[in-house]
Amino acid sequence: MSVLLDNQFRELPPDKSVDTKIFLDNVSHIPAFFDCLGSKVFSIIKSDINGNITKIRAVYLKDPAKYVTLQDILEAEREAHQAEWPKVGATLALMWLKRGLHFIQILLQSLADGERDENNPNLIRVNITKAYEQALKRYHGWIVQKIFNAALLAAPYRSNFLKALSKGEEVKEEECLANVRQFLVNYTPTVDAIYQMYTNLNAELDYTV
Amino acid sequence: MSVLLDNQFRELPPDKSVDTKIFLDNVSHIPAFFDCLGSKVFSIIKSDINGNITKIRAVYLKDPAKYVTLQDILEAEREAHQAEWPKVGATLALMWLKRGLHFIQILLQSLADGERDENNPNLIRVNITKAYEQALKRYHGWIVQKIFNAALLAAPYRSNFLKALSKGEEVKEEECLANVRQFLVNYTPTVDAIYQMYTNLNAELDYTV
Ligand SMILES: CCCCCCCCCCCCC/C=C/[C@@H](O)[C@H](CO[C@@H]1O[C@H](CO)[C@H](O)[C@H](OS(=O)(=O)O)[C@H]1O)NC(=O)CCCCCCCCCCC
Ligand SMILES: CCCCCCCCCCCCC/C=C/[C@@H](O)[C@H](CO[C@@H]1O[C@H](CO)[C@H](O)[C@H](OS(=O)(=O)O)[C@H]1O)NC(=O)CCCCCCCCCCC
Repeated sequence: MSVLLDNQFRELPPDKSVDTKIFLDNVSHIPAFFDCLGSKVFSIIKSDINGNITKIRAVYLKDPAKYVTLQDILEAEREAHQAEWPKVGATLALMWLKRGLHFIQILLQSLADGERDENNPNLIRVNITKAYEQALKRYHGWIVQKIFNAALLAAPYRSNFLKALSKGEEVKEEECLANVRQFLVNYTPTVDAIYQMYTNLNAELDYTV
Repeated sequence: MSVLLDNQFRELPPDKSVDTKIFLDNVSHIPAFFDCLGSKVFSIIKSDINGNITKIRAVYLKDPAKYVTLQDILEAEREAHQAEWPKVGATLALMWLKRGLHFIQILLQSLADGERDENNPNLIRVNITKAYEQALKRYHGWIVQKIFNAALLAAPYRSNFLKALSKGEEVKEEECLANVRQFLVNYTPTVDAIYQMYTNLNAELDYTV
């Protein structure tokens, strides 16, 4: 996830379109974020997200000139799949991927904002739980929610997490959080733009897994 | 998993060696077993097991004439990887795969033996828990054990499970259990033989995930 902070997302153009190739390059560093969480339990999530990225990339590579922006992909798939759409192809993969990206965004923002459990200042469970509730919980049935609660116990200590974010170097907390804030400058608008696109195209689904 | 009962394992030869090609053909029907459990929660396990099979097959296909039996693979990898072995390659994949196979064996045997929770006769949690405790629990850290407990809540009712085992046809319980017993006739000795091979070659590890 050091890797994450090293890979600043690109600033969006005024029309807020997301360039597919740049987006794929940027998100390819995301799965490593889950290694920062420090437990093999999270490798399951890493593969889920890796799967999403692989699926979107496969569609893109079929015709890079046609799929310049993410919206080009969604519109082409809407045309091609009709009634099946949007629960199909790269549209579905990006629907889920954006939720994982949103989870990360809220978690990092919450840390950057200094939100913490005063009774357990070295835990990040409150931050993870906030991110989960806002980004994912509504898409998970009660059993997966219970599994989340169990997995939460594998969350790293705040100090270890910040250290991992800084490539394992001992940097001052403030320095690390400054990097997080810098990362969020372009990351957050990109995630927002994808959500807005799903709303505009009426491509969002709310089924649970 | 109907598919499972339809695919009888081969009887072992007197030397208890397991033919790699036949074994791979037989276990390729196993992942579908987890669809019988009826919840998407189990698709995670399905992919883990699929991954094991893919890894073993990839090694086999590199030189089918060299890897006629599973033991040929383990011995070749022991030679090739030295100190890294047995936590490597198809040896590691089969180490985990056999635990999943063992889990299924104990679960089916327990059902065939008529073990049940008299207070909840239509649940199979006692059977699943027994299989988990004997085949897997010791290889799971406490967090994965907690995740198992949550996932257990997604287990199907006994009647639905037996129906799924019978390709969704309404067969009499006794008929379905007779098929299960028939399936176990060759399945159990195959699983046993693989465990015995790991013991003989001193290839078993007991680290937890
Ligand atoms: C022996 C004991 C074993 C017991 C069994 C255990 C089973 C455990 C199962 C737990 C669920 C793991 C999380 C994965 C959940 C996934 O099911 C969902 C939906 O996943 C999507 O599903 C679609 C179809 O509906 C497509 O297949 C998508 O694939 S497609 O590309 O093909 O279209 C796929 O991503 N993804 C999600 O919910 C996304 C999760 C994002 C990351 C969230 C970060 C959370 C961090 C938590 C920190 C505490
Ligand atoms: C948003 C919320 C998200 C929260 C996050 C959720 C995360 C959930 C994680 C739960 C664990 C799921 C089960 C998978 C466990 C796996 O970790 C283990 C070891 O897996 C092995 O690991 C090796 C390296 O050590 C190699 O990679 C093997 O791979 S290799 O082929 O590359 O060598 C691989 O199979 N397999 C296992 O324990 C095997 C499981 C067998 C099946 C058991 C049946 C149980 C049925 C239960 C019914 C109730």
